[in-house]
Amino acid sequence: MKLLLIHAERFWWRIREPARGLRTRDEPEAEEAEYADVVVAFACVEEGDAGSLDEVVGRAADAIAEFASRVGCREVVLYPYAHLSTRLAKPSVALVALKRLQAALETRGLVASRSPFGYYKEFMLHCKGHPLSEAFRDISASTS
Amino acid sequence: MKLLLIHAERFWWRIREPARGLRTRDEPEAEEAEYADVVVAFACVEEGDAGSLDEVVGRAADAIAEFASRVGCREVVLYPYAHLSTRLAKPSVALVALKRLQAALETRGLVASRSPFGYYKEFMLHCKGHPLSEAFRDISASTS
Repeated sequence: MKLLLIHAERFWWRIREPARGLRTRDEPEAEEAEYADVVVAFACVEEGDAGSLDEVVGRAADAIAEFASRVGCREVVLYPYAHLSTRLAKPSVALVALKRLQAALETRGLVASRSPFGYYKEFMLHCKGHPLSEAFRDISASTS
Repeated sequence: MKLLLIHAERFWWRIREPARGLRTRDEPEAEEAEYADVVVAFACVEEGDAGSLDEVVGRAADAIAEFASRVGCREVVLYPYAHLSTRLAKPSVALVALKRLQAALETRGLVASRSPFGYYKEFMLHCKGHPLSEAFRDISASTS
């Protein structure tokens, strides 16, 4: 799993349309959402993650929680993002991973939400730009 | 080289401070810049690129030009972005690559600018969100 983590002054997304060729998608409750002072976790589940999904999810949650702690922010938005890798997991696996990751973040005391999987979305991101405000993590299982 | 390409409604950046521990950086002419209807190319030069830099730069320019053509946009901002890979090129190599990439884009008829290398920067990105508005490219030399 690849993670691009950004401490944002503001983050907003809005659904444009369902992504083509996908049978697995969320049934979103909202068409858009906006956040202030939030950690945006652009998350890309990869094909190698399926065999050790719980371990990868746990490590990803640890990495996000550590980042959030470092920037002093308790709220996280998980944003499904296929554009961080060329080796994507099946959509069904990715969606399960993202749901588990949200739960794992909540277990770690964070306020975690998830933007809908399976849609083309418009977004507005204001990255704070302080020295700790951006990070990249390449997460894999210890056994992989 | 990793490229995250985004067709943006608006993109703005502003320098916050020089990045720590870097001896190679641009001497920027401007502290900030703003663009409308632009392709933002988040570019991460990797350690394996140094041996075939011209080939990697040429392939990256082709990929960006193809993306720009597909979304019908002639203006590109190259944004140095270390947060797309865990295996970064030396800063001196990265800066040379980005300068050559800017020139290669101009050779291909695009209006290309470069945001300063070697600084922590705040940015605001409004991704259009249409089906073609985001892409990821993993560029390497054919011989690598």
